[in-house]
Amino acid sequence: MRLALGIEYDGSDFLGWQRHDGGPTVQAAVEEALGFVAHHLVEVVCSGRTDARVHAACQVVHFDSEAERDARAWVLGTNTRLPAGVRVLWCQPVDDAFHARYGARARRYRYRILNRPVPPAIQRQFLSWERRPLDADAMHRAAQALCGEHDFSAFRTAQCQAKHPNRHLHDIAVRRDDDQVIVEVQANAFLHHMVRNIVGSLILVGLHEQPEDWLGRLLAGKDRTVAGPTAPAEGLVFLGPKYPAEWRLPPSVTL
Amino acid sequence: MRLALGIEYDGSDFLGWQRHDGGPTVQAAVEEALGFVAHHLVEVVCSGRTDARVHAACQVVHFDSEAERDARAWVLGTNTRLPAGVRVLWCQPVDDAFHARYGARARRYRYRILNRPVPPAIQRQFLSWERRPLDADAMHRAAQALCGEHDFSAFRTAQCQAKHPNRHLHDIAVRRDDDQVIVEVQANAFLHHMVRNIVGSLILVGLHEQPEDWLGRLLAGKDRTVAGPTAPAEGLVFLGPKYPAEWRLPPSVTL
Repeated sequence: MRLALGIEYDGSDFLGWQRHDGGPTVQAAVEEALGFVAHHLVEVVCSGRTDARVHAACQVVHFDSEAERDARAWVLGTNTRLPAGVRVLWCQPVDDAFHARYGARARRYRYRILNRPVPPAIQRQFLSWERRPLDADAMHRAAQALCGEHDFSAFRTAQCQAKHPNRHLHDIAVRRDDDQVIVEVQANAFLHHMVRNIVGSLILVGLHEQPEDWLGRLLAGKDRTVAGPTAPAEGLVFLGPKYPAEWRLPPSVTL
Repeated sequence: MRLALGIEYDGSDFLGWQRHDGGPTVQAAVEEALGFVAHHLVEVVCSGRTDARVHAACQVVHFDSEAERDARAWVLGTNTRLPAGVRVLWCQPVDDAFHARYGARARRYRYRILNRPVPPAIQRQFLSWERRPLDADAMHRAAQALCGEHDFSAFRTAQCQAKHPNRHLHDIAVRRDDDQVIVEVQANAFLHHMVRNIVGSLILVGLHEQPEDWLGRLLAGKDRTVAGPTAPAEGLVFLGPKYPAEWRLPPSVTL
């Protein structure tokens, strides 16, 4: 039987999603807790990997188990075995054809920048910081050049393992909320570091160090080396993937 | 010369504001950092002490120093010596008659409850949690009985050192924001645990375990033992004090 889970995590205490031998990962924590409930080894497939210190409001994974547990038992049992920074939000049986990664039609991220003279004390695990005033409206206008289907090589890290650099960016919005500048972006999928690289370049526009048409020119040039720096991980939250309605998943992860 | 500081802190790593020998406190961290910049021992007086794990968006303190530093040097110098969870937001010279505690005419607090089946992973240091659905509108109506000048003995902890139990509650509002219930309350001053005790009783109204007129009856009865439990510290943020305009402090802490 195939099951889908929604998972929230605070990335602060983890070396990213993907299991590896170098230290604690969210994947390892989730697989260990699920394995305890299932009484067998569990391997999960996620909708989108996140880097060290990046958070997730609703990561979606699928896994297979013949253990007879109802959805409530999976949620409660797994949560009692997870560290405090990871919580299963929901669990749902799904058709065997469901695939958390290949089935996702969209992914959504939010990036938050605290924009004031002093760095954050409260919520510092969830904010990046820019001391100089940012022009959020200029950032928003500049970002619109990224909408649509493009080769995003200009915003792709050298370590990216994707087969091709084309992605369809559905929408991107930059807004100011008091002393924070918030970027929200959705695409069918993202290249490695793509959100943080886009934000890093948008910040230079927000500081008026680059003109508003710069993002469009970077995109067309496909040259990562001339774009802005990669923005810090702390500000980034993976809001979650979106799937077609046919899978009957919760509304928050349905198109 | 007397100086006033605005300070933001994440209470998670501290045993409260007030300096004591049992472990790390915000006061000790601030005094040590200020003393390094001043080159002499510094003692600060705060606008309102906070308990362990309670946060502050803008605690205000005053201290005296003959060290010749401009406001910018106090902020930058102190911040380089503070742990990451504490940041000086601003510094301002004030008249010698200014007193952070006695001069404050109002204090404002915010309490946030995550109201969903699963406890928080993200932001868990800044949220308390209630699994059962809360009726925020009923909580708001019930809370209005507390407005005005009253004897708040029903919401005062046994350890409270205040000389008398009378306080003037200026306003209290309870609202729902998605899956959070947020309580904001302002009074001239608060008794020890007063906000958390009020919230603990409001939660019982929100669960419909007590009627909406219960808060008013608790207040009139002045008996702490029949009120609700003390709500957890994690959800509480001291937004800050308010002073008369004559002190010319930043707008965020001015009436």
